[in-house]
Amino acid sequence: MTQIKQAKNHSITPEMEFVAKTEDISKEKICQYVAEGKIVIPKNKNRNTKPTGIGKDLTTKINANIGSSTEIEDISEEKEKLELLVEYGADAVMDLSTGPHLKEIREMIINNTDIPLGTVPIYEAGVDALENQKAIVDMDSDALFKTITNQAKEGIDFITVHCGINKDSIESLKNSDRIMGIVSRGGALTTAWMMHNNAENPLYAEFDYLLEICQEHDVTLSLGDGLRPGCIHDATDIPQIQELTTLGKLVKRARENNVQVMVEGPGHVPINQVKANMQIQKTICYGAPFYVLGPLVTDRAPGYDHITSAIGGSIAASYGADFLCYVTPAEHLSIPNAQQVKEGVIASKIAAEVADIAKEIPSTLKKEREMAEARHNFDWDCQFKLAIDGKTAKEIYDNNPTEDDEMCTMCGEFCALKMVKDNL
Amino acid sequence: MTQIKQAKNHSITPEMEFVAKTEDISKEKICQYVAEGKIVIPKNKNRNTKPTGIGKDLTTKINANIGSSTEIEDISEEKEKLELLVEYGADAVMDLSTGPHLKEIREMIINNTDIPLGTVPIYEAGVDALENQKAIVDMDSDALFKTITNQAKEGIDFITVHCGINKDSIESLKNSDRIMGIVSRGGALTTAWMMHNNAENPLYAEFDYLLEICQEHDVTLSLGDGLRPGCIHDATDIPQIQELTTLGKLVKRARENNVQVMVEGPGHVPINQVKANMQIQKTICYGAPFYVLGPLVTDRAPGYDHITSAIGGSIAASYGADFLCYVTPAEHLSIPNAQQVKEGVIASKIAAEVADIAKEIPSTLKKEREMAEARHNFDWDCQFKLAIDGKTAKEIYDNNPTEDDEMCTMCGEFCALKMVKDNL
Repeated sequence: MTQIKQAKNHSITPEMEFVAKTEDISKEKICQYVAEGKIVIPKNKNRNTKPTGIGKDLTTKINANIGSSTEIEDISEEKEKLELLVEYGADAVMDLSTGPHLKEIREMIINNTDIPLGTVPIYEAGVDALENQKAIVDMDSDALFKTITNQAKEGIDFITVHCGINKDSIESLKNSDRIMGIVSRGGALTTAWMMHNNAENPLYAEFDYLLEICQEHDVTLSLGDGLRPGCIHDATDIPQIQELTTLGKLVKRARENNVQVMVEGPGHVPINQVKANMQIQKTICYGAPFYVLGPLVTDRAPGYDHITSAIGGSIAASYGADFLCYVTPAEHLSIPNAQQVKEGVIASKIAAEVADIAKEIPSTLKKEREMAEARHNFDWDCQFKLAIDGKTAKEIYDNNPTEDDEMCTMCGEFCALKMVKDNL
Repeated sequence: MTQIKQAKNHSITPEMEFVAKTEDISKEKICQYVAEGKIVIPKNKNRNTKPTGIGKDLTTKINANIGSSTEIEDISEEKEKLELLVEYGADAVMDLSTGPHLKEIREMIINNTDIPLGTVPIYEAGVDALENQKAIVDMDSDALFKTITNQAKEGIDFITVHCGINKDSIESLKNSDRIMGIVSRGGALTTAWMMHNNAENPLYAEFDYLLEICQEHDVTLSLGDGLRPGCIHDATDIPQIQELTTLGKLVKRARENNVQVMVEGPGHVPINQVKANMQIQKTICYGAPFYVLGPLVTDRAPGYDHITSAIGGSIAASYGADFLCYVTPAEHLSIPNAQQVKEGVIASKIAAEVADIAKEIPSTLKKEREMAEARHNFDWDCQFKLAIDGKTAKEIYDNNPTEDDEMCTMCGEFCALKMVKDNL
């Protein structure tokens, strides 16, 4: 039985207990929200991972994407990225590999971490098509479902599936005045496949079959936003919101079939539209956990999109996003290297912390308070311990040491804290 | 005559014309807002700088702080920082030097840039006291006014003065439950001086004298927030808001005396309190331009406070802050080096851009649109040209080149744009 099915039966699973303890919330509450679909615990039956709750009243979680592309594939670097993202506190990892050795990379991840693992199965189906000398768009829809089944058996905890794209939404897209069209890889692949084969999206048309597979292994669905806006100009337009309404209907069907489900969101969004995007998702998708990529709040900062999405992500999570997908400084430019993965994770952790302060999560407020006290007391070791990246903070501090521990080189003798301490 | 005096006389100065042209707004509007005190053009009569407007309906401006401390002083590195901050688009610079050679550093800045220059004169008065073998708190209040006069004659365009601290506000502070007390250097210095000498703050008590000096040279006042919160816990409390109400009253007196004035704001503020802080400043200070440090939206990211303040700054500016003071990754840890100055400027430029999108500044929206078009057309050179830091973006891209110009290594053959282009 899936977590949601057991929750509906008022049966509190060890996973729910674990989440309740980690989050300092009653297990009855966790069980209620899992039953209602407002919390998901992505944990495949076939894999023994740390149960992680995503959703209502919980701390904001973050995901880091790694994986190869057809242009770069280096398993040892992917392993290094995996180690770093775990070290710096990512709550989940997605393998977005699209290179020829994607199966090995996935195996490496499964064997080397116990945080929830997600994939986008259509990528593997596409890679298989390429390997069989076919064009990506020539892949077989049966092959796609076979891939999903295999991945479910392997233990994948959550899968991104672009079920919200259908013939209607493509029509909407054609009539829109978008600059960027489609920027979601899975969305573009699905759309290209549909156009090429003049057929409905199999993940939409055969959604019940998809639910069966997920139900059997307790794979959590992450309903992808294939038509998410790819630039500020395209944000919050008809194709995006039309797809969201489709996703809302699918959320209901997934829950009815005892499949855990979350919904993915934009994308590139102006800062003054972020709140509305969060609120509308929560109403249209019946309070389903919201998994957000970014949002990136300007298009003009390639090289710094970890910052643009930390801005958008902070606001998004403070208005209801539950799960932030990190973005690295290499976004729009290149596969990220290990250092860029680390920077992406840290920026995303900052966004989550910022939002959890607004959500008044008690453990978050306690740590913020402890940090302020450590700073006030010139307790540098405690500051480094409490910092999101204490190593880097210590490096900067140690680089310019002072003889007097009760100051730093920033203000020297003019340290406000010191002046007040000495005189008040 | 000062800019505000001339504006009140309906006389449009060359400076107002320049700002009107730069911002693509009618010069009559600029003149009106300068007269009302809603826009300032910080430009000392004795210095020939590029006129820069800060305030209502204008693009968000950013300031970068440089300068020495008693612990680190290296004029050549300060020069390098100055060059970098100008290269990456800072609209103004403040010299916050507190080391023994602060006069030389200021001279170097005056001679090497034409953007507005600000200072905190009490630092120089404090340094002079130290040089005369006195404690900082033993400095003479006459010496402080002499310093201000000298700096005004030298051509300083705007000065931060902590006029809002008085005996009442210190009483409030003592009765508060703050963790961090005072974190503003000028605020701490003023308070320590008052306690030590059992006297009222001279900049508050003799505000009219200060106005006389500023009026003579058209020095813009930046009313410092000496009691700004120094941690999330202390945000938006009684001492902060009480000081703000004092500043509001001083704004009125400055305008009546034909002195341009802006107001400085927090500090460390939870993300869900940023909007309220912006709105209350605008009402209490009669729409005076708001100059914000951060706000930093978490205390737990030392080493990354350029990101925490880009988050706070984006929101602040989208709700009315007009002028963002950058924060570097070294904040709370060390004097920033040149590279950290660059990172601080870029993060702050991102925040300004994000806010200007929300403000629907036409030139900003146009550039965002051009960026999206360049991205859609795989026009990499145009992307790098439009990027806030094109050099870094190009480096990341060039580091992992592909044979096909119409993709990058991030997605390779699975590029969404390419798939759509090839199939739709």
